[in-house]
Amino acid sequence: MSRIEKVEFTNMCMICDGNKVVVMDRQKQDWPGVTFPGGHVEEGESFTDAVIREVREETGLAIRSPRLCGIKDWYEDKCRYVVLLYKASVFEGELVSSDEGMVWWADIDELPKLKLSLDMRDMLRVFADDDLSEFFYYQNGDKWLYDLK
Amino acid sequence: MSRIEKVEFTNMCMICDGNKVVVMDRQKQDWPGVTFPGGHVEEGESFTDAVIREVREETGLAIRSPRLCGIKDWYEDKCRYVVLLYKASVFEGELVSSDEGMVWWADIDELPKLKLSLDMRDMLRVFADDDLSEFFYYQNGDKWLYDLK
Repeated sequence: MSRIEKVEFTNMCMICDGNKVVVMDRQKQDWPGVTFPGGHVEEGESFTDAVIREVREETGLAIRSPRLCGIKDWYEDKCRYVVLLYKASVFEGELVSSDEGMVWWADIDELPKLKLSLDMRDMLRVFADDDLSEFFYYQNGDKWLYDLK
Repeated sequence: MSRIEKVEFTNMCMICDGNKVVVMDRQKQDWPGVTFPGGHVEEGESFTDAVIREVREETGLAIRSPRLCGIKDWYEDKCRYVVLLYKASVFEGELVSSDEGMVWWADIDELPKLKLSLDMRDMLRVFADDDLSEFFYYQNGDKWLYDLK
């Protein structure tokens, strides 16, 4: 039996330096608010190369050894959307904003006070808690619900 | 631009109890040798539910809070094959073999002496090393090569 699914992969990376993390105020209005840098995985690209590339494009930083710490996923129009969540604490370079949005170092304890993007607050729990690996959205009738697993 | 890919998701779980891990001598001859339990993710299923279900079917153990620790992936016939790699150290139940293959507790240091499945030895590095998150296969002409990232 074939279990081949249609999937769109993206990534998001929490870059840490002590208790500071890089946040981004994304310009695109389809998903506004403060979030972490990241973007699309291209077909044929390794997942690790993709997150390194996206972070460099959006922050100017060259991260090394990004560590996979979780997944956010949901279905829409019979496609599974998969966001691979990474942490990185080794990097080189200086933080530079791009056309995608302004980036800056924020105190991790101050994040809840920022205008976070939708569901970012709960997503932070997957980044922070080693016992959580997934943020799974599902539909119940017209309603979108999610479980942290 | 659409970045939707065709993907087949499977999983594999290293279940740990101190320095012992559950290994499986898989019966299917398409991928013989000693490996960790795991199997297919069904469409619509969360990744976490899938690995919990597969481990229960193949070992009798009910794992809790499986932790995503890496990904193995490669392309074949324009499909990306993705194996999600998990570790679990919290479980209930007694180890029971299934039709899929015999399972038993092995000393983790003894694994290299077993008849491991193809590439299992290098995959163990992704399970063991927090700085590695991906085992990416790629083709160079007729040859399959891989990078640990």
